[in-house]
Amino acid sequence: MKQESISMMVVRRLPRYYRFLSDMEAMGITKISSGELAKRMNLTASQIRQDLNCFGGFGQQGYGYHIPTLRAKIGEILGIDRPRKAILLGAGNMGRALAGYTAFERKGLYLVGIFDADIRKVGESYGGLTVQHINNLTEFCKKEKPEAAVICVGPWAAQEMCGQLIKLGIRGFVNFSRYDILADHPDVMVQNVHIGDAMLTLSYQMCRAEELPETSQ
Amino acid sequence: MKQESISMMVVRRLPRYYRFLSDMEAMGITKISSGELAKRMNLTASQIRQDLNCFGGFGQQGYGYHIPTLRAKIGEILGIDRPRKAILLGAGNMGRALAGYTAFERKGLYLVGIFDADIRKVGESYGGLTVQHINNLTEFCKKEKPEAAVICVGPWAAQEMCGQLIKLGIRGFVNFSRYDILADHPDVMVQNVHIGDAMLTLSYQMCRAEELPETSQ
Repeated sequence: MKQESISMMVVRRLPRYYRFLSDMEAMGITKISSGELAKRMNLTASQIRQDLNCFGGFGQQGYGYHIPTLRAKIGEILGIDRPRKAILLGAGNMGRALAGYTAFERKGLYLVGIFDADIRKVGESYGGLTVQHINNLTEFCKKEKPEAAVICVGPWAAQEMCGQLIKLGIRGFVNFSRYDILADHPDVMVQNVHIGDAMLTLSYQMCRAEELPETSQ
Repeated sequence: MKQESISMMVVRRLPRYYRFLSDMEAMGITKISSGELAKRMNLTASQIRQDLNCFGGFGQQGYGYHIPTLRAKIGEILGIDRPRKAILLGAGNMGRALAGYTAFERKGLYLVGIFDADIRKVGESYGGLTVQHINNLTEFCKKEKPEAAVICVGPWAAQEMCGQLIKLGIRGFVNFSRYDILADHPDVMVQNVHIGDAMLTLSYQMCRAEELPETSQ
């Protein structure tokens, strides 16, 4: 399988397939046609067939997809069956919300430590983990060897932290900060979650929606 | 300006331009060439010129961009100067983290109410707002006329809520739930923030990065 050549556009849809299939499996549905899946996911049947063909195609002509098989296969591709150790940097509001996010391990990551520079947060417990002081980071990483980090600190702290984390063996980041990790470290893997950008994009859409009726006057 | 014809790919980059320009302005930088901006943003100078040309182009040949002007103009396009009233549904971990997100109003939205179905959460205060019971929603919306909603409830509650919210005049959603709003309501505006999808995509990237050295053996 030439999985390395699959476009990021297709890859980004995989978690969505996984969510839909998991929900259907939970409802006891075992079989679905590409047309029906397309309808539920607001895609075209042809797009679904193309997407899934990238990964070897799991459908059978005239039968459709066997949901548990397809879900398991996509889960395997996404690495859900072998979650990686991850640490969380920053026990502020967002960091605490994420630490309480119990579905972590079903997302391919497995939270093993929470760190903060603020001594007042050290010792607090979230999601079954106790917040440690950032000074423990090096020792902890050498012992636990986490592979991924979730960055929930401010942009300046993030810049400082990421350099250190990469030296400690972290190769993947889920980045909630404004800091652009790839600009300084092009060789690591980064998924940015810019909540503010989503709000701004919505704001843009709403402004345009207001303008449209005017332009048609 | 034919802003309605601008591709969502360009639109999605605008918040990022806005962030970079705001940071530079805060550092006292007033002028930048497209080449220098490209370097900082990990884009090409030609892409930057193309993107900004979509909005009328704000650069001057041989001078570059005047940062405060460009930032203000992009902010205006994004609707930052006229934030809209928004309500937050769900005062769980994520909802509370978002309510404490003080930069809300600089993101084109202005939080005016928080609602939850859990009576134990009613009366708690986050980000200067008191959590109200969901039963107050209709009356509140009729009075305050919020235009946008941030959805931080579970997928089943989200499905029920969104239908009600649309009837109450909400046209824009920032959706943190698994529920696919557009599948049922194609006429509203939705920005999805799927944190779990970002984690899964990172997991995928990390799996592939491990496989690549093997395939080159």
